[in-house]
Amino acid sequence: MAYRGLLSGACVALALMAGAAQAASPAAQVRAWRQANEKAIVTDFVKLLSMPNVATTVSDVEKNAAYLQDLLKARGFTTQLLTAEPGTPPSVFGELKTPGAKRTVVFYAHYDGQPIGQKGWVTPPFTPSMRTALPEATPVDWQGATTPLDPSWRLYARSAGDDKGSVQAMLSALDALKAVGRKPTVNIKILWEGEEEQGSPHFAALVKKHKETLKGDLLIMGDGPMHQSGRQQINFGNRGITGFKTTVYGPLKPLHDGHYGSWAPSPTVMIASLVMSLRTDDGKILIPGFADDVTPVSEADKAALAALPPIEGELKTAMGLGRNIGGPRLADGYLAPTLNVRAIHGGDTGPDAANAIATEAEASFDVRLAPGMTPARVHQKVEDYLTAQGWKIVRDTPDLATRLANPKVVRLNWDEGDSIASKTPMDGPAAAAVAASIQRTRGEPVLKVPLVGASSGMAEIVNTLQAPMVGVSIANYDDNQHAANENLTLGSLWGGIEVYAGLLSDLSW
Amino acid sequence: MAYRGLLSGACVALALMAGAAQAASPAAQVRAWRQANEKAIVTDFVKLLSMPNVATTVSDVEKNAAYLQDLLKARGFTTQLLTAEPGTPPSVFGELKTPGAKRTVVFYAHYDGQPIGQKGWVTPPFTPSMRTALPEATPVDWQGATTPLDPSWRLYARSAGDDKGSVQAMLSALDALKAVGRKPTVNIKILWEGEEEQGSPHFAALVKKHKETLKGDLLIMGDGPMHQSGRQQINFGNRGITGFKTTVYGPLKPLHDGHYGSWAPSPTVMIASLVMSLRTDDGKILIPGFADDVTPVSEADKAALAALPPIEGELKTAMGLGRNIGGPRLADGYLAPTLNVRAIHGGDTGPDAANAIATEAEASFDVRLAPGMTPARVHQKVEDYLTAQGWKIVRDTPDLATRLANPKVVRLNWDEGDSIASKTPMDGPAAAAVAASIQRTRGEPVLKVPLVGASSGMAEIVNTLQAPMVGVSIANYDDNQHAANENLTLGSLWGGIEVYAGLLSDLSW
Repeated sequence: MAYRGLLSGACVALALMAGAAQAASPAAQVRAWRQANEKAIVTDFVKLLSMPNVATTVSDVEKNAAYLQDLLKARGFTTQLLTAEPGTPPSVFGELKTPGAKRTVVFYAHYDGQPIGQKGWVTPPFTPSMRTALPEATPVDWQGATTPLDPSWRLYARSAGDDKGSVQAMLSALDALKAVGRKPTVNIKILWEGEEEQGSPHFAALVKKHKETLKGDLLIMGDGPMHQSGRQQINFGNRGITGFKTTVYGPLKPLHDGHYGSWAPSPTVMIASLVMSLRTDDGKILIPGFADDVTPVSEADKAALAALPPIEGELKTAMGLGRNIGGPRLADGYLAPTLNVRAIHGGDTGPDAANAIATEAEASFDVRLAPGMTPARVHQKVEDYLTAQGWKIVRDTPDLATRLANPKVVRLNWDEGDSIASKTPMDGPAAAAVAASIQRTRGEPVLKVPLVGASSGMAEIVNTLQAPMVGVSIANYDDNQHAANENLTLGSLWGGIEVYAGLLSDLSW
Repeated sequence: MAYRGLLSGACVALALMAGAAQAASPAAQVRAWRQANEKAIVTDFVKLLSMPNVATTVSDVEKNAAYLQDLLKARGFTTQLLTAEPGTPPSVFGELKTPGAKRTVVFYAHYDGQPIGQKGWVTPPFTPSMRTALPEATPVDWQGATTPLDPSWRLYARSAGDDKGSVQAMLSALDALKAVGRKPTVNIKILWEGEEEQGSPHFAALVKKHKETLKGDLLIMGDGPMHQSGRQQINFGNRGITGFKTTVYGPLKPLHDGHYGSWAPSPTVMIASLVMSLRTDDGKILIPGFADDVTPVSEADKAALAALPPIEGELKTAMGLGRNIGGPRLADGYLAPTLNVRAIHGGDTGPDAANAIATEAEASFDVRLAPGMTPARVHQKVEDYLTAQGWKIVRDTPDLATRLANPKVVRLNWDEGDSIASKTPMDGPAAAAVAASIQRTRGEPVLKVPLVGASSGMAEIVNTLQAPMVGVSIANYDDNQHAANENLTLGSLWGGIEVYAGLLSDLSW
């Protein structure tokens, strides 16, 4: 398979060198411990997932933070809750020094979650429930079941995959190492963010403020899904993000569309027109020069992308898609910007549908930024383009004078949080050590993704801490993150515990 | 003014001839009666408006029908509830014979109302409330106020303007004539429909079934708003209508748009694309040959349209519009088809907004049919066009095999009710008699509109009854019909009572 070709060269050689200077992987011992403690681990995870953690509800987020701080204290960490300023969501920080260790590794995850109002949750998002494998997904009494629990079972709850699964894997990995008598080989710092799902508006400031506390030789980011092939991947960065909402305006009051439809502008059409002026159905962004700032894709990145196992055909079947847009390979798009239409709304459907011209309509967008792009430049390009298309841009609901003076008015508000892309070179020694550790744990080469399509606030963090960053994802790709019925397979959690335990106790460079 | 030019010729001559053969208008007496009974009239109207009448809730509709039947009985009518078949919404029928009368006039209105779920109702839609003139619209205690009540006050409730105002005007006109001792000059038939706001799915069959009961020499349709200038208009028909809903499909489950946005088709974009493939922002319909069947506009119609007072500038100001679409004159569009986008929806906005690719998105449309067009031909043209654009049309939620086999799938369902346009010649004797009666009541020439933009099920009715139809609207144009805060000005109601009283007692040809 293609990925074996990639790893058969220098990377594997490095991995083997690192392995040679290192104690054996604790994977077998950790697995035995996990097999003896599956229900206790799931019980802990259920308790963590039962705590509401919608990112925008800061009081809930703070309760999670206090709970996690206690869990780290109980595992011997010195802890702090870090904030950028009072009243902003705290990051949970914990430190565990290892006598004689020469390296310090910062393990990042986030404990806040996406909103929960999506339709279709089979059980309440903060009442974790176990279900059998897809597609049946039958409810199952895991507490009454005999062990070992079926690793294809899935625990359903908000944040199961994104990103409390990563938090639980770390906690259980620490428990496992203690139980089997293995010591960490590095100094450990833990940084669990509490506002990632609202776009990390204060996180960069928080890291700057606590730079000395947080610094280390390597940042391991435990967020995002594994490769769709089910194989462990590591990544070397994320795209950036910026988002905006638009509202367009028609008549001050709804109008009967028989009387006025041929004469009065229709916001439902205007918003569709605005969307289609920005991008095509096929994903092409129509804003001139939008990708001008993008860093050209290196040959090494192209080779790494080409080496990823082909999963697109299976994905289409699993997702019910009769086509894809953009290029044929999923990951190729990650090194370019994407303009997503999160939502479009105008007028009433269903029982309240009326033959009326609506007063306004709205659309919500996000832009994923490739390396080289900045939110400020994207804002300028979007606004210049809309202005050139005849839109008068305002920041609040327009008054009558503004409506009358302008043929097309759009209220445009940029989201609070944004970020640039983050990218660490794939060939540094710390990155190679991570790949080697995971290879020892998993028993097979790890897949390397130059950049993942999702975003995080990590670019500024990496710049502040001046450390390389490697993303180690443990969640199944089909975990419904950001959607109803978010879930994590037990197999993903078991694997994550082993991977983290390995990184804690056999990593060196 | 332009409309005087139109009426200074043959129409006015006809009107004066009709007037010469006729008793004087009862307008002055009716006005005096109304002035002495304003609070009683409003009390009756409030009682009628307090009865929930959403067209799709048949049990509510039936309660209204029984109540109205009683009101007609109390005024000496013989009555029946007519249905097309058991279980379908009833029409209230009443007949009052006038000894010696040679003409029978059928007065049509509808007593059902639009749905009520629109946002922004200042008071509940079935709790009628009086408010002062716009823009203040301050709540006012009309029961405690001294009379005369301010005619610029507005009574807010669902159906106040569309179309219980017309029903109340007829009831009060009958009361007024009785009180002042004036007899009708024609046999009166009343036909109040109970399913107009759900598109009259059974009304044509109802009229066919009861053709002998309903037949007459003239059909006066009391629905729709007055001219925007505030002047009384009469019209000679309506456009037809057909509507449809579309749903387009993306992934089976929502996807993280960072990971999948550049590769998975986005329903929010697909629905915008579908909308913009059907029409432009400026109202141009992009379906080839869509207007091929439209009857060419006659010179007489063109002249009548040109004679309407210019109200477009004031309308734009009142509606907060910085532009209009289509041609410069509002009514010019009525003789052509219009494709309206009632609603467009996909993804979540607001607190549940997520950076996700939605699973589906929908849009709802109606098409207003000009004379000559038929719903069947429109259906064919729309579906042929969408098919040519690459859409696979289905009637139910597509199964996995259908999704996988087709790049673009759209579920398309046509609304149950539809209708062709209805058009009566402007120069017939019955039409001239109506114009003359209203001119006597109002003291100024009536405006003549060849066709109004709204729809009704009247075309088939006119064909069945083989009688000319004239539309006599009494509601203020800004009555928020089909929207939140529907209302009727007291002045509109007072005028309507006088106009109906005149038509009942001084009409002859």
